[in-house]
Amino acid sequence: MRLIGLDPGLRNTGWGVIDVEGTRLRHVANGVVRSDSALDIAGRLLQLNQGVAEMLERYRPDEAAIEETFVNKNPESTLKLGLARGAVILAPASRGIPVTEYAPNRVKKAVVGAGHAAKEQVQMMVRTLLPGSDAGGPDAADALAVAICHAHFRQTSQVYARALALAAAK
Amino acid sequence: MRLIGLDPGLRNTGWGVIDVEGTRLRHVANGVVRSDSALDIAGRLLQLNQGVAEMLERYRPDEAAIEETFVNKNPESTLKLGLARGAVILAPASRGIPVTEYAPNRVKKAVVGAGHAAKEQVQMMVRTLLPGSDAGGPDAADALAVAICHAHFRQTSQVYARALALAAAK
Repeated sequence: MRLIGLDPGLRNTGWGVIDVEGTRLRHVANGVVRSDSALDIAGRLLQLNQGVAEMLERYRPDEAAIEETFVNKNPESTLKLGLARGAVILAPASRGIPVTEYAPNRVKKAVVGAGHAAKEQVQMMVRTLLPGSDAGGPDAADALAVAICHAHFRQTSQVYARALALAAAK
Repeated sequence: MRLIGLDPGLRNTGWGVIDVEGTRLRHVANGVVRSDSALDIAGRLLQLNQGVAEMLERYRPDEAAIEETFVNKNPESTLKLGLARGAVILAPASRGIPVTEYAPNRVKKAVVGAGHAAKEQVQMMVRTLLPGSDAGGPDAADALAVAICHAHFRQTSQVYARALALAAAK
């Protein structure tokens, strides 16, 4: 099972791909898609969408995960985040790749074990959980963290489904 | 020259197509693309993007115009608006159709002649400027208003460019 985590931003959109085999995680690749701030908004959103689409074509993940947007106090920033998210989410959605959203606290809890961990703690745990990942900057590390979170919750829900099936079979 | 105006919203995205010949405007079609609130965000954004893409394929506009987002006081609403806008703008952008943004006041001024006109005045003027348009609701009327605004400013900038060229030729 291959997963991609996405951390959308209008300037930088982080992405990280991992493979999941049982409880084992393996780092595949990570990076950042950038948009050119000299372009108009349509051009920038197209760059983000196409950049993410390129990664989807290259790594062919089965599922995608994205952090739920932290609503910023600055409405302009919130709007920009929304624009970027809309353009980024469309890349997997239009290819039939399921997209799951996770609240920031859930991501932190899955990676560090605490819902209120600092950004640096998350990044350190990403490096520990994915040896050799060496994320290309904080946005790529955040994207890997969402992918790890998705791996965790997918497994939990599968174990739960299996337990339910066993209980029903009795 | 055929133009499409777009009024993005997560629930309802209005669209309106007009033809422009010199100073004459002709209504072609208008309507609303809806997203199903029972779907997850990825599914809803895909519906909006594909619905608008369908209209672009059907009516083949040369250019697109969109109202600059009114930043809402409610951050959740601003985020939703951003998501919808991102997904909607991508439809023309990914087809190489230029997208121009207009501030709400500029749209009102172009249509009604006053930057602080009421919504109802805008809708009435849309009906007057585009006989037979009979917009399918307020979102479609707003989309037609942006298209009218774009027709107006395209022409002004063309007249201006012609005047500059004449002056330069002297």
